[in-house]
Amino acid sequence: GEMLGVDPAYLDAPAVAIELIHAFSLVHDDLPAMDDDDLRRGLPTVHRHFDEATAILAADALQPLAFQVLSSAPLQANGEAMQLRLVRLLARACGSRGMTGGQSIDLQSEGHTIGAEALENMYRLKTGALILASIESPAVLCATLSEADRQHLLQFGRCLGLAFQIRDDILDVEGETEVIGKPAGSDAARHKATWPGLFGVAAAKVRCTELFEEGMRELEAFGERAAPLRVLAHMIVERRD
Amino acid sequence: GEMLGVDPAYLDAPAVAIELIHAFSLVHDDLPAMDDDDLRRGLPTVHRHFDEATAILAADALQPLAFQVLSSAPLQANGEAMQLRLVRLLARACGSRGMTGGQSIDLQSEGHTIGAEALENMYRLKTGALILASIESPAVLCATLSEADRQHLLQFGRCLGLAFQIRDDILDVEGETEVIGKPAGSDAARHKATWPGLFGVAAAKVRCTELFEEGMRELEAFGERAAPLRVLAHMIVERRD
Repeated sequence: GEMLGVDPAYLDAPAVAIELIHAFSLVHDDLPAMDDDDLRRGLPTVHRHFDEATAILAADALQPLAFQVLSSAPLQANGEAMQLRLVRLLARACGSRGMTGGQSIDLQSEGHTIGAEALENMYRLKTGALILASIESPAVLCATLSEADRQHLLQFGRCLGLAFQIRDDILDVEGETEVIGKPAGSDAARHKATWPGLFGVAAAKVRCTELFEEGMRELEAFGERAAPLRVLAHMIVERRD
Repeated sequence: GEMLGVDPAYLDAPAVAIELIHAFSLVHDDLPAMDDDDLRRGLPTVHRHFDEATAILAADALQPLAFQVLSSAPLQANGEAMQLRLVRLLARACGSRGMTGGQSIDLQSEGHTIGAEALENMYRLKTGALILASIESPAVLCATLSEADRQHLLQFGRCLGLAFQIRDDILDVEGETEVIGKPAGSDAARHKATWPGLFGVAAAKVRCTELFEEGMRELEAFGERAAPLRVLAHMIVERRD
């Protein structure tokens, strides 16, 4: 955002909206009918702490709150067209051709062997779409961004989203429950289709590094201005929780 | 819409968006953790026909689709501010201070005795908010509507929403499963807080008629132009399914 010269005040609403969508998705993903997880961020999941109905409804209410925040925030004069683009972009990112569709493919893939391309397509939707939205939203607000630079940013966002999910899969294999804040080994227990599960942890690490390096190349066009994104990318591929 | 002189072409997007939200809410309301219904519109509910995960996710994807439709539809030149108002209005109607909040209160009220005011407040949220949105949206698109007339319309919408839910409750007591397309008597079986359950069917019918008549009075300001809304109100209080 700041690297694009966008007033940081305009970035609060998209950031909050994306976080609300993310929270909604975690609460539903943890439900018994979905990933059936008892622990999230080191605490009982919402349906364990309250009950299933509460978890379903609480998350159902987070989703419209995201759109309310996004459509209510005051923007610069005549910024309504931009605001509508942000709404459209977020709606696409979390719908059937984004996060929710990806989660559905994820569940359907359990117990099946799928190829790397199908796997990464699923990752692009279930994890990548919302991460991409967090990169694309500030780009919408930057009127001076060239189309070429916008494409570099989006491609960086796609690499980052994939790398994030692969790192997540690796942590599920190598991490400890206390550190990652959710039950380690749950992917294998559910026979989920994952990079380490299908191709081994070593191959997953190679792919993660590959995506990191591709992402770095996309940022070259921005020079020093992209330093915060480089830090973020480093954090994502090196994180332990 | 037409009675307000709004181009019918502009009403498709809000109508579709509201119907998508309605469909999403029915699918989640029918889930085992919620109302646990097997039948809807004479057919197996989504979680019965497919499975719970599919029902959760399919509905989760309908919600952003509603906001996508609403923010994508082409409107008149410089209509972006209006479109944003429609997004805000729908987001409010289906969130924690609207439909989803109402459903939560509904579940919490099961097995409890509550007063008429608390009951109607719950109805206003769980059922009335979305019905009101379907009245309020065309009003947003009518630039020439006076504030007084807008308030008449909104009050009509509030009466209609309450009457609709009370009629629904009466049908649950008096209707037959084959006609209403969902299991009759399920409110009583779940000890739901309803008008007929708390105050009797006769009192519920009186209240329904009262609301109908109040709604009719609100429409007087519009004369003959409001004929379609009168037909709609008649259908709602007289419906058998």
